[in-house]
Amino acid sequence: MTPKVLFAATDTAWQEYEGHLGHALAAAGIEAELSPEAGPPETVDYIVYAPSSKLKDFTPFTRLKAVLNLWAGVEHVVGNQTLRVPLARMVDQGLTEGMVEWVTGHVLRHHLNIDHALSHQSGEWVRHVPPLARHRPVTVLGLGALGAASAQALAGLNFPVTGWSRTPRDVAGIDCLSGPAGLEEALARAEILVLLLPLTPGTEDLINAAHIDQLPRGAVILNPGRGRLIDDDALLAALDAGHLGHATLDVFRTEPLPPDHPFWAHPKVTVTPHIASETRPDTASEVIAENIRRGEAGEPFLHLVDRDRGY
Amino acid sequence: MTPKVLFAATDTAWQEYEGHLGHALAAAGIEAELSPEAGPPETVDYIVYAPSSKLKDFTPFTRLKAVLNLWAGVEHVVGNQTLRVPLARMVDQGLTEGMVEWVTGHVLRHHLNIDHALSHQSGEWVRHVPPLARHRPVTVLGLGALGAASAQALAGLNFPVTGWSRTPRDVAGIDCLSGPAGLEEALARAEILVLLLPLTPGTEDLINAAHIDQLPRGAVILNPGRGRLIDDDALLAALDAGHLGHATLDVFRTEPLPPDHPFWAHPKVTVTPHIASETRPDTASEVIAENIRRGEAGEPFLHLVDRDRGY
Repeated sequence: MTPKVLFAATDTAWQEYEGHLGHALAAAGIEAELSPEAGPPETVDYIVYAPSSKLKDFTPFTRLKAVLNLWAGVEHVVGNQTLRVPLARMVDQGLTEGMVEWVTGHVLRHHLNIDHALSHQSGEWVRHVPPLARHRPVTVLGLGALGAASAQALAGLNFPVTGWSRTPRDVAGIDCLSGPAGLEEALARAEILVLLLPLTPGTEDLINAAHIDQLPRGAVILNPGRGRLIDDDALLAALDAGHLGHATLDVFRTEPLPPDHPFWAHPKVTVTPHIASETRPDTASEVIAENIRRGEAGEPFLHLVDRDRGY
Repeated sequence: MTPKVLFAATDTAWQEYEGHLGHALAAAGIEAELSPEAGPPETVDYIVYAPSSKLKDFTPFTRLKAVLNLWAGVEHVVGNQTLRVPLARMVDQGLTEGMVEWVTGHVLRHHLNIDHALSHQSGEWVRHVPPLARHRPVTVLGLGALGAASAQALAGLNFPVTGWSRTPRDVAGIDCLSGPAGLEEALARAEILVLLLPLTPGTEDLINAAHIDQLPRGAVILNPGRGRLIDDDALLAALDAGHLGHATLDVFRTEPLPPDHPFWAHPKVTVTPHIASETRPDTASEVIAENIRRGEAGEPFLHLVDRDRGY
């Protein structure tokens, strides 16, 4: 029987995805009925889902086999009590690559002090030679697909990389710590701190005044993860007090970041408008098609969310 | 017999190197007489040499076994007709690492358009998502130690990297071209062009108007190699005409770059004050000590300069 796939996202997303999804399903050998219109909900087998979708009640979808999230983040759907079927996160190679590039580029920008070079073009030849990467400790909080790949790219450039996750993980080439004591150690080492944790009740406001205090003086924070990982007021206070050197932020509690938010004008804050990582319709469609193929073949789904952990 | 080593460089260099060289020689099992004073020239076995040294006439050093250059560049010494013993270049791992970091950092800066982000902090949320590195071709001219290591670091970040050298070379993971036809192809591909060629009569002014024309419109040039590789006027003309997007330059025909040089004020030029790569006294001393050990043991020297090719 031909599976029915509901595409529950914006019209813009549908325009971007329709062709790519069709190709990817065909390439996976799946003949599916793909539509942005639900029709009778009891006939739907899979929902391709953007958490910004208006669809919030999964109850009528009685035949549903899985919800396949279009986004890496699931915090806006994982707590939905009407969702009782497997939920898969998007783990898109294109998204991972984009994240690794943003993280590596901004780590090197701060490591090399490129901002200083850009603001010193007035004819004065003053040489500041940065230390080698091997003498610049970087800590990555979060060792999921994005965190692990970013940590390994930085280690490949000789940075001594510490990784931290709530529960123990093992990532080749990375000094992996976990738990509360591990966090203290990971923060104490971080001349550059990269936040790639999922947003859960346990990680919200993790970067608060107490944890910022554990960073070495002059540390730089990069947040391409989730806006709510950071206590904004504590961050601003630490920047103003000179304890932190800089913050480069790609995600915020409110997006778009309001024009009057103090982050925009702060000389020690760089705002990038949520561009660190972007799901790419071509590669993401392949991930979705593979999961539909698995569902139809009775194989286990990839990238399933653990509803208890929240990611 | 205890070999005598003359350190022919500045007093500042001597202060930086004396301790490191002593340690490195001891670690290599060499008991040597190391001094910044020549004494009787016919008693000197090795000269550790900075091309900025006042020593220009090697004729009186009749017992000399080798000149061990402190710098990677040898263009100021290779043509010295009084030098008739083996000349070794500095191939310092610290220098290579620093170069790889500068090149990777500035390639990612241009790839991600970080300058745009830094100059757009006024509250306007406009998302420009860059392409993935796998869709951004980079060309590295020069596949010596620095060029090959930089090319491989970029390939490790998924950039499709083309390498070019005058004579054929083979570098794992890099599409290597050579010769005049190869140069045309290498330039035509380069959205970002990195210059890491040695300075020879064949490479001086290689980046002239004709070769710049072969680059795709909007291409960015990074020059951490040698200032004289570029025809400055042709570069400025191509930037002003909009054919080139940007140039980030670390080396210049005259250093320090004079305050009134047009590069400083040009909005499409970034000047960094010859900091891309710096010989590090600790690692460089190990290279010199190893070559002295080899000379004393009758083994072939490392990193010998081919006097005919000029590097």
